[in-house]
Amino acid sequence: MHSDPRPIGVFDSGIGGLTVLRHLLRLMPGEDFVYLGDTARVPYGNKSAETVRLYASQCADFLLRHDVKMIVVACNTASALALDMLRSHHSIPVLGVIEPAAGEAVRLTRSGSIGVIGTRATINSESYLKAISDVAGDRPIAIHSRPCPLLVPLVEEGWVDAPATRLIAEEYVRPLRQAGIDTLVLGCTHYPILAPVLQDLLPNVALVDCGECAAHQAMQLLEPHGESGHVPRLSLYVTDNTPAFTSLASTFLGRRVDEPVRVSLDGPQPVGRG
Amino acid sequence: MHSDPRPIGVFDSGIGGLTVLRHLLRLMPGEDFVYLGDTARVPYGNKSAETVRLYASQCADFLLRHDVKMIVVACNTASALALDMLRSHHSIPVLGVIEPAAGEAVRLTRSGSIGVIGTRATINSESYLKAISDVAGDRPIAIHSRPCPLLVPLVEEGWVDAPATRLIAEEYVRPLRQAGIDTLVLGCTHYPILAPVLQDLLPNVALVDCGECAAHQAMQLLEPHGESGHVPRLSLYVTDNTPAFTSLASTFLGRRVDEPVRVSLDGPQPVGRG
Repeated sequence: MHSDPRPIGVFDSGIGGLTVLRHLLRLMPGEDFVYLGDTARVPYGNKSAETVRLYASQCADFLLRHDVKMIVVACNTASALALDMLRSHHSIPVLGVIEPAAGEAVRLTRSGSIGVIGTRATINSESYLKAISDVAGDRPIAIHSRPCPLLVPLVEEGWVDAPATRLIAEEYVRPLRQAGIDTLVLGCTHYPILAPVLQDLLPNVALVDCGECAAHQAMQLLEPHGESGHVPRLSLYVTDNTPAFTSLASTFLGRRVDEPVRVSLDGPQPVGRG
Repeated sequence: MHSDPRPIGVFDSGIGGLTVLRHLLRLMPGEDFVYLGDTARVPYGNKSAETVRLYASQCADFLLRHDVKMIVVACNTASALALDMLRSHHSIPVLGVIEPAAGEAVRLTRSGSIGVIGTRATINSESYLKAISDVAGDRPIAIHSRPCPLLVPLVEEGWVDAPATRLIAEEYVRPLRQAGIDTLVLGCTHYPILAPVLQDLLPNVALVDCGECAAHQAMQLLEPHGESGHVPRLSLYVTDNTPAFTSLASTFLGRRVDEPVRVSLDGPQPVGRG
């Protein structure tokens, strides 16, 4: 059987989505990938819903011009605010990171008390609340969510083990611990980098990595593709050549990264390139 | 004598420039002001020089369509990277925040050892280094600079007195204290909000507030305008209605703030409005 050789498109507000791409590459070594990081307008997490939707639709349009067969919205904020819009506009599968993580959290919890941390925009959207309630159905589940906006800049500065990071993370998770959660959704692409610190602060809590859950769901949706020994082709695009991308990309992706290609999403777009 | 009744334009990457506007309003109560915060693309401090120049020129064009008589670039990053370009493109005075602060720092220092803190882009541009050296002339001055990218998100989260903020600020200023600075330039619009913490950590160091210095220079450049009893007209524009603007604007400006008007800088611009 010949399966679809077109690449999978992945976009994020910036560099964080590479933690999602990492799992996609690991689980689907037979696929090719096009990754777009909107580094010229990062972050999305403190912007309005209207602006996030505009940016997300521009990112999706860019990926479609690269003839992708599926779009993975790696950014939690964009998944929370723009997924329905993207699905209604495009006929290819559009996968977010929230529904898969919600499903995994409901499967994992024993106590029925789930914590969710994310950007202010993600938490305010109540998308996790809705997604977890949808999966849980009649099962009673208590959801405790907390916006943690300082964790992204701390990770981007590389302050992963710093005392200040531990202090801030403790401040954020204290009410979740007091609420007795046994499962915590890391509802932002940057947070898996802080998993060791968070696990230390919440030793008996299961951590849910959105990127891993989304990669599993993507794998279920697609026919296996590629011969054994296929080396995935990874095309990396950014909207700005920020210093952070180059210095952090390897940490986020877990492998060496080539220099990304800079593109513009605002202006007139050349068609049929790339 | 009849002086120029047109407003003064002020732009910033977001909300921070309100700390500059605060001093402009205080020192020039006879003037009207148009403020633009590019909240849809904030922050500028971790983006590339090319991108910051593009954004700054779009902000300046917007202000010129409002018939301003002078532009104050309230953002340190834009002042560092785009001031020369803006001056070469426009005939009205374009004032940045770096030169005025550099002059004040050289006037204040006794030991000749000056510290500068700012965003990564501001510090990497070496604009303060050049500006301070220009003012100092033959006088030997040692400049110790340090990027402090975590201070902006801490201020935006309102963590002004938090233990974590003190810990991070101490981490940042320790090498400056060890270098024996007696003057510290707060090279980012957000930092004056942290002045009490910074002064506590550096009790014998004079703090230089860029916004205050820029406002003094603007006042020197302009004819006094407006009758006594004039109530300054303040027009506030933003590129995104972010929650942060509304919640923090009053803190930054030091007075109650009306709801800002949202505008777009990317697309086609209506001419002659506002």
